[in-house]
Amino acid sequence: MSLLVIGTVAFDAIETPFGKTDKIVGGAATYASLAAAYFYDKVKIVAVVGDDFPQSEIKDLNNHHINTEGLQIKAGEKSFFWSGKYHNDMNSRDTLITELNVLADFDPIIPSSYQDCEYLMLGNLTPQVQQTVIKRLTNRPKLIVMDTMNFWMDIALNDLLETIKMVDVLTINDAEARQLSGEYSLVKAARKILTMGPKYLIIKKGEHGALLFHEDKIFSAPALPLAEVFDPTGAGDTFAGGFIGYMAKVGTVNFNNMKNAIILGSALASFCVEKFGTEKIKNLTKEEIAARVDEFVHLSKFEI
Amino acid sequence: MSLLVIGTVAFDAIETPFGKTDKIVGGAATYASLAAAYFYDKVKIVAVVGDDFPQSEIKDLNNHHINTEGLQIKAGEKSFFWSGKYHNDMNSRDTLITELNVLADFDPIIPSSYQDCEYLMLGNLTPQVQQTVIKRLTNRPKLIVMDTMNFWMDIALNDLLETIKMVDVLTINDAEARQLSGEYSLVKAARKILTMGPKYLIIKKGEHGALLFHEDKIFSAPALPLAEVFDPTGAGDTFAGGFIGYMAKVGTVNFNNMKNAIILGSALASFCVEKFGTEKIKNLTKEEIAARVDEFVHLSKFEI
Repeated sequence: MSLLVIGTVAFDAIETPFGKTDKIVGGAATYASLAAAYFYDKVKIVAVVGDDFPQSEIKDLNNHHINTEGLQIKAGEKSFFWSGKYHNDMNSRDTLITELNVLADFDPIIPSSYQDCEYLMLGNLTPQVQQTVIKRLTNRPKLIVMDTMNFWMDIALNDLLETIKMVDVLTINDAEARQLSGEYSLVKAARKILTMGPKYLIIKKGEHGALLFHEDKIFSAPALPLAEVFDPTGAGDTFAGGFIGYMAKVGTVNFNNMKNAIILGSALASFCVEKFGTEKIKNLTKEEIAARVDEFVHLSKFEI
Repeated sequence: MSLLVIGTVAFDAIETPFGKTDKIVGGAATYASLAAAYFYDKVKIVAVVGDDFPQSEIKDLNNHHINTEGLQIKAGEKSFFWSGKYHNDMNSRDTLITELNVLADFDPIIPSSYQDCEYLMLGNLTPQVQQTVIKRLTNRPKLIVMDTMNFWMDIALNDLLETIKMVDVLTINDAEARQLSGEYSLVKAARKILTMGPKYLIIKKGEHGALLFHEDKIFSAPALPLAEVFDPTGAGDTFAGGFIGYMAKVGTVNFNNMKNAIILGSALASFCVEKFGTEKIKNLTKEEIAARVDEFVHLSKFEI
């Protein structure tokens, strides 16, 4: 039994209204695996980096009990690099640089020791690669969660729609839900997307929280209002990783457990944005997480 | 004991992505008093209209047990008229026409029978007029709730700041909280605004719900995800009216009661947007309201 995370392990350079970084370590699989590892101790990743990627960073993942056997290191090549600048609302951003590098021909090889995968997190990546991973698993995982973004809707919609058919949970933001469905109302958008394959849809709304849709049920999760948001990069990946990590921990897939998984994912994401990159999400204690979850409980509780 | 609502009683012409109306009855005091009257039976209004305002509409208010003794009817003059067009996000709008008419020299006369006012709702209006009402009440009400908007921050900031000092609860939207405080983070914005006079701040976020701030406490209320939002006009006024109506009903001013008041206000606002103008908010049953509140409970409840 294990939780497999695929996605990017990469470099980011980030500019927000509050500051700017040089190249720092990022990537969907980095954030998601770090987050998942707080709840589940058999997290494994499949990803690719160049030989410019620091060994110390790989060791850091291992120190968090993340199995990196499936992390390919391509000699003489460079890691994926993304640079972006956030607008004042911190929900929208401009991409300044995208250098695919090793990602251009990424073939997601699944080590045989990974075939015990029960929980699969498809981090944001080419839908074709996400699909390949599903096909290369001998047994269909108990729960497949897929994250994606508008970029793939723009340039690889057919592949995306094919992949979406194969997953249980789709996580996208509100603008992406509108784009994918062609519906402005999120309720109508969700209804449409739930006919495309996924049984559960999570719409992430940044500082406004998240919505979970399943059949006719809706759960609205709050976001913790924060005084300081330094950097939203990786918040969505952290959320998804925390979400699936908690689901793997509880082991039963249902709406109520997903509600809690969203709260846990949101709690971790609320830490992620407090510092640039993975700094905060790498160094949390169980006590800090429990206290943050408690804040979420008090934040939205009422008795009428 | 009574609940006094001041604000506009007026005509609106509205365009949304979903349709368009001719001149229909609107105004902050109309929506707020109709909403408050669902929870409290001693609602009184102070407002001004021209003789173009239909008597049947005034009777309609009276049928909802709203006292209109303080509604001035100016012979030979015209009622306030506003026309606006909503953007696709339904959170922002352009004002197309503003004809002040009777509002230009509105002197809010308080009938002596209104001096039993314990709950005062200052609907969106010139801050100077809002302030005059507070000063003309012999006894300071137990609870003063003030709604306002960016327009007054632009053209009458000093008056606005003077009036804010005198109230208990301020309700504004997120963009307005940012404008008023000069802070982007809503937590920092709230901290600043809570030093300006109000002990409670409600930040309305449209389809994303609302935040209540008081001392170091925050409550995050969800908004009901709706398949159809026809017209957001009056939703904020309906919310405020429902809020203060519920506070008047329970009679004790504290954070916990305000949390419930926000849920009740949000429930009424969620009806308001389902049809153009006051149509929906005029014709609700107690059962419909209870069922909607139940939806809010299920929407945001989790047990972790």
